[in-house]
Amino acid sequence: MPLSALLKPFRLSSRRAAERAFRVDCELTYEVDAPTDFVFLVHALKDAEQHIAGESIDFHSDSAFHVFADPTQGHRFTRVHVEAGRFTLLYRALVKKRPFTRDLRAPEQPIHELPDHVLHNLAPTRYCESDLLGRAAYKLFGHLPPGHARVQAIADWIFEHIEYAIGSTGPTTTAREVFVQRAGVCRDFAHLGVTFCRALNIPARLAVGYARFDEPPPDFHAVFEAWLGGRWVLFDPTRMSPVDDLVRIASGRDAKDVAFATLFGPARMLSMNPQIEAVGPQQLALADAGG
Amino acid sequence: MPLSALLKPFRLSSRRAAERAFRVDCELTYEVDAPTDFVFLVHALKDAEQHIAGESIDFHSDSAFHVFADPTQGHRFTRVHVEAGRFTLLYRALVKKRPFTRDLRAPEQPIHELPDHVLHNLAPTRYCESDLLGRAAYKLFGHLPPGHARVQAIADWIFEHIEYAIGSTGPTTTAREVFVQRAGVCRDFAHLGVTFCRALNIPARLAVGYARFDEPPPDFHAVFEAWLGGRWVLFDPTRMSPVDDLVRIASGRDAKDVAFATLFGPARMLSMNPQIEAVGPQQLALADAGG
Amino acid sequence: MPLSALLKPFRLSSRRAAERAFRVDCELTYEVDAPTDFVFLVHALKDAEQHIAGESIDFHSDSAFHVFADPTQGHRFTRVHVEAGRFTLLYRALVKKRPFTRDLRAPEQPIHELPDHVLHNLAPTRYCESDLLGRAAYKLFGHLPPGHARVQAIADWIFEHIEYAIGSTGPTTTAREVFVQRAGVCRDFAHLGVTFCRALNIPARLAVGYARFDEPPPDFHAVFEAWLGGRWVLFDPTRMSPVDDLVRIASGRDAKDVAFATLFGPARMLSMNPQIEAVGPQQLALADAGG
Amino acid sequence: MPLSALLKPFRLSSRRAAERAFRVDCELTYEVDAPTDFVFLVHALKDAEQHIAGESIDFHSDSAFHVFADPTQGHRFTRVHVEAGRFTLLYRALVKKRPFTRDLRAPEQPIHELPDHVLHNLAPTRYCESDLLGRAAYKLFGHLPPGHARVQAIADWIFEHIEYAIGSTGPTTTAREVFVQRAGVCRDFAHLGVTFCRALNIPARLAVGYARFDEPPPDFHAVFEAWLGGRWVLFDPTRMSPVDDLVRIASGRDAKDVAFATLFGPARMLSMNPQIEAVGPQQLALADAGG
Repeated sequence: MPLSALLKPFRLSSRRAAERAFRVDCELTYEVDAPTDFVFLVHALKDAEQHIAGESIDFHSDSAFHVFADPTQGHRFTRVHVEAGRFTLLYRALVKKRPFTRDLRAPEQPIHELPDHVLHNLAPTRYCESDLLGRAAYKLFGHLPPGHARVQAIADWIFEHIEYAIGSTGPTTTAREVFVQRAGVCRDFAHLGVTFCRALNIPARLAVGYARFDEPPPDFHAVFEAWLGGRWVLFDPTRMSPVDDLVRIASGRDAKDVAFATLFGPARMLSMNPQIEAVGPQQLALADAGG
Repeated sequence: MPLSALLKPFRLSSRRAAERAFRVDCELTYEVDAPTDFVFLVHALKDAEQHIAGESIDFHSDSAFHVFADPTQGHRFTRVHVEAGRFTLLYRALVKKRPFTRDLRAPEQPIHELPDHVLHNLAPTRYCESDLLGRAAYKLFGHLPPGHARVQAIADWIFEHIEYAIGSTGPTTTAREVFVQRAGVCRDFAHLGVTFCRALNIPARLAVGYARFDEPPPDFHAVFEAWLGGRWVLFDPTRMSPVDDLVRIASGRDAKDVAFATLFGPARMLSMNPQIEAVGPQQLALADAGG
Repeated sequence: MPLSALLKPFRLSSRRAAERAFRVDCELTYEVDAPTDFVFLVHALKDAEQHIAGESIDFHSDSAFHVFADPTQGHRFTRVHVEAGRFTLLYRALVKKRPFTRDLRAPEQPIHELPDHVLHNLAPTRYCESDLLGRAAYKLFGHLPPGHARVQAIADWIFEHIEYAIGSTGPTTTAREVFVQRAGVCRDFAHLGVTFCRALNIPARLAVGYARFDEPPPDFHAVFEAWLGGRWVLFDPTRMSPVDDLVRIASGRDAKDVAFATLFGPARMLSMNPQIEAVGPQQLALADAGG
Repeated sequence: MPLSALLKPFRLSSRRAAERAFRVDCELTYEVDAPTDFVFLVHALKDAEQHIAGESIDFHSDSAFHVFADPTQGHRFTRVHVEAGRFTLLYRALVKKRPFTRDLRAPEQPIHELPDHVLHNLAPTRYCESDLLGRAAYKLFGHLPPGHARVQAIADWIFEHIEYAIGSTGPTTTAREVFVQRAGVCRDFAHLGVTFCRALNIPARLAVGYARFDEPPPDFHAVFEAWLGGRWVLFDPTRMSPVDDLVRIASGRDAKDVAFATLFGPARMLSMNPQIEAVGPQQLALADAGG
């Protein structure tokens, strides 16, 4: 079944000429040795900035699955219990994104002006020990004028001082360890950005999604967001993919909130292939017309 | 103004003969050197098990404050911005608690039967590194039959192996460190209980509130809750206070979610005096009549 | 060239009927990408308990090497500077060991009776944080009567509580981490034994050498020694190899003192094959007679 | 008894006009609750650069003490077993130091040119995890030309990036933690210097002794030494005291080797007052004449 068959009709409105569209194609394959529970987080987020024009999720398996949405943020988790054997998850979607206009003069907000709902993004978390890196953050970035440029300086510092090295970190690696060992992958870069921001009293969180990159092989991407000028602004300290092209899956305090897959049982991933490609207006129209 | 003046009328219903009532009296005093933001979490929780018969919060200060409730759990946070000087927070309440019938045969639920909303209580957090203590938990408790008795064994192990030592830990101490150093205070005991449970795939969280103890000096209390038989069940590995008498303030993933006070700025606590006392039926009636 | 050709004549003395002999055969192969310095520690130790009846070291390489002995303990280090390419170290020896009579009633010595030269074996080291595990050691072993049986209890506890799992640890893993994660290899088991002993004020050190085991594949072995009854006594918490058969290379504060190879430069080990076999009296006589 | 009474006669030789002399006066007082063993390391080192013109050690206590010298470096340790009560150690000395001519162009030596006896100063130790800070060291200092100036750059970096904050660290604090928290005292500054050097393959060690400073209150001082141009060269990243005026007690791999006092038992320090003052030629002559 072609993806187009799944699409609800939609049209590029003339007033949203700058909207862009992406086709998501994600395939995950696992080998399960004994009964295992999976919680996947692969659905593109539905929010004010992303419209899901069409999507499908399928398991090449007999296992029943169930999708639920986190009541606060609308993250859509998929739960599935698998007895044994090999199975494949296939998620496909067509996502339209509103353009994001970056305000390079966006200010930091003082604590007492922060909205209630972002306060918890100031707290340290499992992989972001902002309570331990406070003095380091102030020594490195405390002298800079507050605002967008300071958070950009954080992202730049990470890009310049941390080596992107696949295999240098694992699922339990924290920002403190990355700061010491000076190496990591996108998730680690983002955790360190989150940590520095929180240490400076700038609310920050991790954002994960589908991204385009030439190198390295297809993977989910993680970047960080800082609360500036009254909204969340994305930063990618890896500089590996244009942040405007990120198809967001979720935002969370750190990686434990937004893992694309959480496993309970003896299973292992055999392959992953999450990809996006930009879709031009003509393809969209074609899809719209019914494929 | 006597507490009775604050009370909305209420009556011990005959069908709820076992209900108990507690008077909460909490006073916190701070010295503020320069503008500081506080987020307090001192309000007793309003939920199915606790009825707030009356309460007041007051600041001996000109600073305006604002109370907001966390949309998911109803925790009531109080934000206040203080310019400088000494100030005191006074919180008083009369709280009625439903009796909790502990089911000593309550089972653990397999992952695929857990309700969606408790799943996130399986993840490691800043102070509960269940991702690092997995093998330890299985070696210590993996051979025990699942259920209430196993979680009780965890609480007992903590009581027997961890020394209660004021000053042995600080605000950044984690369960892993407590497991290594074998000392801590109530918060650390509870973190370790949470961590072991999660490592065994039992959803668990920290619960904080007002408790009665002779020793040590008045403080907020922290215990842990495990998800057993389809509901949250309290355990106190310190054995310092009867869990049935805990007037709950909040439940959270770990201490960072439920700190009684979070400070942003140069201020320090001068004194704290959170206390509860049981209130007999006659006192309740009096309070009721005098309202 | 057969090993026998290397042997200095020696004879099993009638007064040392219980002496045993072992043939050591150790081959290490490295690929060197650019100039690299190696410091090897593979020579069997010459001391009161081990007699080196014959030995050879050879590098299949043009690189000059140089052997020096540590002035305190007589460890023989081999330094070699390799420009590039593949090279192989071959060490072979015939080692006679005096029997060690274990005194199961050997006492611990109080601090003030310890000889000066063992005092430094009470201090924490890189991989043995006895300063962090003090309370844990006392809680686990403090109630046991001091002496050989207590150290044996430490070795037994490690065997029972730590899983032998190749790949679970790396070169920077410390005893504290092993205590938390409950897994490791021989070096980690030994580090934990050293750490508990020191925490209890029992001088302890790491001993490494050539050992016999069926499983796992050939590797150097590490055990620990405690100072009991006025001398060093070996314990093997892995129970993988009879300690009496260990052909000792060195003893050190921890693994950093006694690594079999330390590399400075871009090189990697391709294979290792350190082995011993017991040599019977007839073979010894044959070797003695000239081969 | 005046210090002069303790002095063996000595004379400022005309050929050593640049020699300088210091009077050391060190008083340590302890309260001992139950039998405790102490190992003190307070004697000024006798070596090629320091001549001990006179000295005394005294305990205001009945306890017998015994002094022994480490065979490798000549450090003089004092062991004393105290039953209970208060006691005071008094160490006084008159020390002549040879001038040290610093060669600002001293080179680093490649590994294969290092003398055997300094090799072990490349290894990580309890408080100097050079195995964890390797990439950080290379990223910060790897681009600088090797030699004295690079080690000076390390000392400068520490001075600029680490805050001197009494109370920010404790006896178990390591260089990694100091690198993360960006605060420490002299011992921590020195540990970090040692760690960076070793990570860059420059042999380095901790040096402790008596130093002059106005601020903070009298304490032992710790600096670090790097092996440059074939000898040990001192660096003080705290910039608190002129390194030429350090009266050396000992050099070690890290603080555990050279603690001024190691305690085994329930005792606590009541006061410490280690001090030095420069002694002019006339005072020396007087002391000499009055001996």
